[in-house]
Amino acid sequence: MRRSSPIVLLTDFGTRDHYAATMKGVLMSLAPRSPVVDLSHGVGAYDVDGAAYLLWSSYRYFPRNTVFAAVIDPGVGTSRRIACLRTPSYTFLAPDNGVLKFIAGESPGAAAYAVRMPRRTVSSTFHGRDIFAPVAARLARGLRPSSLGPKIRLQGESMVDARRMRGGRIEGRVLAIDRFGNIVTNVLAPPDPAGIAVTLGRRRVKRSSATYAGGGAGAAFLIRGSAGLLEISMNRRSAARALRVRSGQKVIVCKV
Amino acid sequence: MRRSSPIVLLTDFGTRDHYAATMKGVLMSLAPRSPVVDLSHGVGAYDVDGAAYLLWSSYRYFPRNTVFAAVIDPGVGTSRRIACLRTPSYTFLAPDNGVLKFIAGESPGAAAYAVRMPRRTVSSTFHGRDIFAPVAARLARGLRPSSLGPKIRLQGESMVDARRMRGGRIEGRVLAIDRFGNIVTNVLAPPDPAGIAVTLGRRRVKRSSATYAGGGAGAAFLIRGSAGLLEISMNRRSAARALRVRSGQKVIVCKV
Amino acid sequence: MRRSSPIVLLTDFGTRDHYAATMKGVLMSLAPRSPVVDLSHGVGAYDVDGAAYLLWSSYRYFPRNTVFAAVIDPGVGTSRRIACLRTPSYTFLAPDNGVLKFIAGESPGAAAYAVRMPRRTVSSTFHGRDIFAPVAARLARGLRPSSLGPKIRLQGESMVDARRMRGGRIEGRVLAIDRFGNIVTNVLAPPDPAGIAVTLGRRRVKRSSATYAGGGAGAAFLIRGSAGLLEISMNRRSAARALRVRSGQKVIVCKV
Repeated sequence: MRRSSPIVLLTDFGTRDHYAATMKGVLMSLAPRSPVVDLSHGVGAYDVDGAAYLLWSSYRYFPRNTVFAAVIDPGVGTSRRIACLRTPSYTFLAPDNGVLKFIAGESPGAAAYAVRMPRRTVSSTFHGRDIFAPVAARLARGLRPSSLGPKIRLQGESMVDARRMRGGRIEGRVLAIDRFGNIVTNVLAPPDPAGIAVTLGRRRVKRSSATYAGGGAGAAFLIRGSAGLLEISMNRRSAARALRVRSGQKVIVCKV
Repeated sequence: MRRSSPIVLLTDFGTRDHYAATMKGVLMSLAPRSPVVDLSHGVGAYDVDGAAYLLWSSYRYFPRNTVFAAVIDPGVGTSRRIACLRTPSYTFLAPDNGVLKFIAGESPGAAAYAVRMPRRTVSSTFHGRDIFAPVAARLARGLRPSSLGPKIRLQGESMVDARRMRGGRIEGRVLAIDRFGNIVTNVLAPPDPAGIAVTLGRRRVKRSSATYAGGGAGAAFLIRGSAGLLEISMNRRSAARALRVRSGQKVIVCKV
Repeated sequence: MRRSSPIVLLTDFGTRDHYAATMKGVLMSLAPRSPVVDLSHGVGAYDVDGAAYLLWSSYRYFPRNTVFAAVIDPGVGTSRRIACLRTPSYTFLAPDNGVLKFIAGESPGAAAYAVRMPRRTVSSTFHGRDIFAPVAARLARGLRPSSLGPKIRLQGESMVDARRMRGGRIEGRVLAIDRFGNIVTNVLAPPDPAGIAVTLGRRRVKRSSATYAGGGAGAAFLIRGSAGLLEISMNRRSAARALRVRSGQKVIVCKV
């Protein structure tokens, strides 16, 4: 048997329940040679922005032809579409609710398809098991995305580029708060964020650092995170908690 | 080397500590060709009902001959038995404390065996590492369950069937609360739960929906969950928190 | 392609974010035949003692030649060293901040090397992805640790041995609190901890048990944990919470 492509799972299922494991059972049954990797099952329930960020930050580090199945799907069982996006190197499967927006935004030539719903009865509550996993398994074994359904156009979104500030100021938002309390924005940071300042609500941060440890104690600072995005951090403390910042909150970036 | 059967782990060990990983080390050492999958390590400590539900909901989606090792084991090191249950398609290893009851309940012809304790010294605190993992590895490599020890009879339990209400009413209980706050009962639901009502404590729920999103805002509704069980849910809210429901709580199902 | 060595990951990244998965993407790209196992990603942020304990308790159960990559790294991007330790059977990669101290302490003849930093630009915020994963992949495929950089001496630490009490008393500390609330110390326990007493703050514990279930209800007891260390436990309750104990706290062990 030929080794088939890796499959990466991104869901808001958590790992306490059986949902993620049940998907793996289906994947192992249908694509036994595909390694299955968890990107995360800890996306906030229904947090599309957070899921889109996680996928965008990590997908490029996986082997060519990896299949990503992202199931953040509050509309499960309704008439919402399931999309398959094929870039030159990767395949993505997700509800058409924005989870793929950052990938689509940087892959303008990529083809997308709506997944035709299977005729046989499936549950209306667990498409991760009944649709996403079987389709991902077939894609991993070589099925062409174009055979899944009609071609569609996916709405893309680009990260905001701090190097292209008009009038010396741009607006972005908080995409995610990570485990360490780092505040991740949708603003592409210059290699050295010195010389810019960020306003979140009433707070203004203009100190910057190249490393977390170098940021000094007690005060928030700007840093270029590992995905190239502007982050607001504190050394060994949660910047999000200290500054009371939440996902989705507006940030204003300007030159100092 | 022949590829050996997959091994699925279900424990209450959590994933912060080394316990689950240590079991995997043993499994990889003894059955290097067996893929190892986590069903869950997040079962509530000592929550036998919850573990039994997770196993029952997911096992049928794994490949034929998968070996399931369930270590929810407050009696570790005491004289409690360890059981191996062999159904036509799967093998299960667990303390004989009820974790396998729903599988046994629907597999009346399946054979069960008590695992004879090894002669060499093992710890009295970590049988997951010292007994469950080595035995699971040998089962995955083809050992016959009957060679583990004497035949025993496992106590089975069937889910309650709402289609067989006597006097128009049946009694069940809450098996689990999932990550989304869905309240999962041990009552097999009709395909469409309209026409029935559920009482939990002082609350009565009689609205129903085929999808989570279709349940409308603000009010609890009945839904047939993906494992076929009756659930009480709310759209984008935790029904368990809103209704203050706990695992084990009694539910009364009746016709409206 | 030859099967390459397993790779085990230990980090404080959590599993909600993409960090651990991104490392796996790199590992799968560079060492596609290496099984990758999570030891834990739930180490307390920057908890070096806890990480060192997890590694020490579990590494010996993994197959020979397993490569362990431990990324608990508050100094990421600064001039702190990254160390590679090679014992007769295993290879370890970690910041030189103490994570390997218990392994080094019991492997006096093992060779250690400082990892020479790569010339090409890497991020200053995510060495897990940019250094640890690529180096671990190369080690798993057979690279000799000595080719990574100059030989160094790693600071080792031995567990305290309760069998060698001088003056009938020794001092240790709390290494970790596990999921069940068991208090794990750095004191190697005698097979039967009866006959010793432990003082934590104002509390003194001198009851002992061979099993968790045998410890009786309501009172803390001493037990020899599965790694051979002295633990303070309660049956089905968190001893750490009941006794208000924290990691790092001093414990005094004496004969009764």
